[in-house]
Amino acid sequence: MRHRFSARMGRVPESFLGELFRVSAVPGVISFAGGLPGSAYIDVEGLRDAAREVFSEEGRTALQYTTTDGYRPLREFIADRYHRRLGLPATPEEIQIVNGSQQCLDLVAKIFLDPGDAVGMERPGYLGAIEAFSLYEPVFHAVPLEDDGPDIAAFASLVRSHAPKFFYGIPNSQNPSGVTYSEGKRRAVAEILDGTDTVFYEDDAFGDLFFDGKPRLPVKRYLPEQTVISGSFSKIVAPGMRIGWLYAPAPILREFNVAKQAADLHSNFLCQVILHRYLATHDIDAHVARVAAIYGEHCRQVCDLLDDLMPLGTTHTTPEGGMFMTVSLPARVSSMEVFSEGIKEGVAVLPGVPFYVDGGGEDTIRLNFSAAGEEEIAEGIRRLARVVRRLA
Amino acid sequence: MRHRFSARMGRVPESFLGELFRVSAVPGVISFAGGLPGSAYIDVEGLRDAAREVFSEEGRTALQYTTTDGYRPLREFIADRYHRRLGLPATPEEIQIVNGSQQCLDLVAKIFLDPGDAVGMERPGYLGAIEAFSLYEPVFHAVPLEDDGPDIAAFASLVRSHAPKFFYGIPNSQNPSGVTYSEGKRRAVAEILDGTDTVFYEDDAFGDLFFDGKPRLPVKRYLPEQTVISGSFSKIVAPGMRIGWLYAPAPILREFNVAKQAADLHSNFLCQVILHRYLATHDIDAHVARVAAIYGEHCRQVCDLLDDLMPLGTTHTTPEGGMFMTVSLPARVSSMEVFSEGIKEGVAVLPGVPFYVDGGGEDTIRLNFSAAGEEEIAEGIRRLARVVRRLA
Repeated sequence: MRHRFSARMGRVPESFLGELFRVSAVPGVISFAGGLPGSAYIDVEGLRDAAREVFSEEGRTALQYTTTDGYRPLREFIADRYHRRLGLPATPEEIQIVNGSQQCLDLVAKIFLDPGDAVGMERPGYLGAIEAFSLYEPVFHAVPLEDDGPDIAAFASLVRSHAPKFFYGIPNSQNPSGVTYSEGKRRAVAEILDGTDTVFYEDDAFGDLFFDGKPRLPVKRYLPEQTVISGSFSKIVAPGMRIGWLYAPAPILREFNVAKQAADLHSNFLCQVILHRYLATHDIDAHVARVAAIYGEHCRQVCDLLDDLMPLGTTHTTPEGGMFMTVSLPARVSSMEVFSEGIKEGVAVLPGVPFYVDGGGEDTIRLNFSAAGEEEIAEGIRRLARVVRRLA
Repeated sequence: MRHRFSARMGRVPESFLGELFRVSAVPGVISFAGGLPGSAYIDVEGLRDAAREVFSEEGRTALQYTTTDGYRPLREFIADRYHRRLGLPATPEEIQIVNGSQQCLDLVAKIFLDPGDAVGMERPGYLGAIEAFSLYEPVFHAVPLEDDGPDIAAFASLVRSHAPKFFYGIPNSQNPSGVTYSEGKRRAVAEILDGTDTVFYEDDAFGDLFFDGKPRLPVKRYLPEQTVISGSFSKIVAPGMRIGWLYAPAPILREFNVAKQAADLHSNFLCQVILHRYLATHDIDAHVARVAAIYGEHCRQVCDLLDDLMPLGTTHTTPEGGMFMTVSLPARVSSMEVFSEGIKEGVAVLPGVPFYVDGGGEDTIRLNFSAAGEEEIAEGIRRLARVVRRLA
């Protein structure tokens, strides 16, 4: 038979993520390519105890269907934490549970985008978002990301000229760059959007992971009715449970809930209940602070090794948090070659190319510093430096 | 701000499912309205033991990210079971794990449908499918469902005249009617589709739940390269884990996998591993046979009570399996009134209306017979009969 797939399937960029997960799993390869939190810092015992309690006290309920919005006590916990940490007046009614914040990318695009609609992105932008949005056939407009956030003049011009349905940004420890917006740029972004019909889509996967343990105020503080925030337990508890959320104003959350119901009725209820039990009986803030401090050490280690070992002309961002940094390669060194040669040398990195909706990234690679341990980092960056020196 | 939602959001029919779950939860209301498997028949202890083993032996792995396709041993189990039960030559490479078979509805539509494309449906058709597909803005064409499957002349005419991207059917114990396709109609459907570019989307949520314990051969047996089958553990193990799958030919599964990755990277890995451990250490076939036999008793009880208590002019389908039947009301009794008056009387049913893409269903209601126990069924049908007699 002739397969008649939808037009949108022709719009998906060639995917690196699947390839990545495969490469990362090859024995002997040290991977800086994926986005895995450090396995060593997942509290398996704490989650095991929470699971045991849930099975013995409310297993039959947790194994049934539930409502689309998600487990209310979990939504209450999330809302309370926004209040406590960031001074945001969140209510459980403004929270929808999803399958990791990746599902927000799909469903926010689904409720807003018709083919040809304008979407604003950071340049470079998160490739998972580019993939998810592409399936809704938008026109991407990218705003250069500087050391302290988006180029404000370009951002203002984009909003004025193209009135995007939404601008997608990661103000805290951006993926792939590690850049964090300054407070001034957060305010500027909010001021430019205020009064327009453009939504700010604030992906906050990494806001808990500042190495100094201090949260930064989200853009939503300055633009509450026009901002949606996505969050996730993947980086701070465990990705395998696939639990994230969208925090959004009521009119948006209503449509989002309709899309979520059509997509899969509701997220895994058993894990929602286990996760809530875990959060209610453990100090998540202390856990996250410990993990963030360790990632900070890893990040400094990577930066130092890059400074010591990489050939002249190599530069890199210096993240304040999160799990990623971007390395700019010396002239004439191709990121795709570093990727393929790196695999042969036993080190996996991610070329910058898929993070650019309008070309670019041939001279940058993304490095993850959360997954590998200290010794692996030392050996892995040595391998990487060998590859880059050879190609330079 | 002015909210600029996508055109597709205007295409969603008013949803009953959310309302249903809420109504079903009101204390004192006996619900035949939902689609819940009987909570009493979820093997909480078996799943608890499986979870304990997974946490102690491979918790750290199960709590990490994994590949999009899903846990390979689970896919092997599913493929083996197709082989063993139905003689289908399934391989793990043809199976993609999803969040319950509802996610297949979303993603199959996503990979096939452009706005205005034709989709074939049963009449009445599953409302969850109608909701999910509607978001991709197709034109629905409904084929009347007879006691033994679709009206074959109408089916052939639809395929010839409109060349739908796919025809969505539930050959085993259909939702909402409880109708099972005869073997002759399965063959006829396959023959009509053979050589066309129309995919048969075979939703097999209920194929395990034939009261006589005997499986029926799927349409895919007669049309292997053109049929996708969706399956689910929701009805046979536990819905709260949200684990289902798509079994599809390689060219289709490849696109489906791309859409799945963009949608949420992968399904809950912890529950995939727990579920596989449970299946590997328990006799799922024996469990399912027990549950199906109990549902059979419930179904007969409901049929007998309807025959005894409902006013003249009431008829109903007589399912061979599954969880649902359809009741046709006496002349001039409105299903919407039965719904709203029923709630007041403490009994919830689902009006037929949302199962019709082209109008209809005002004179039918869907009854679920898996969720309520024997005493509840007796009292609930008495209440329902009182309501219908009053309205007749």
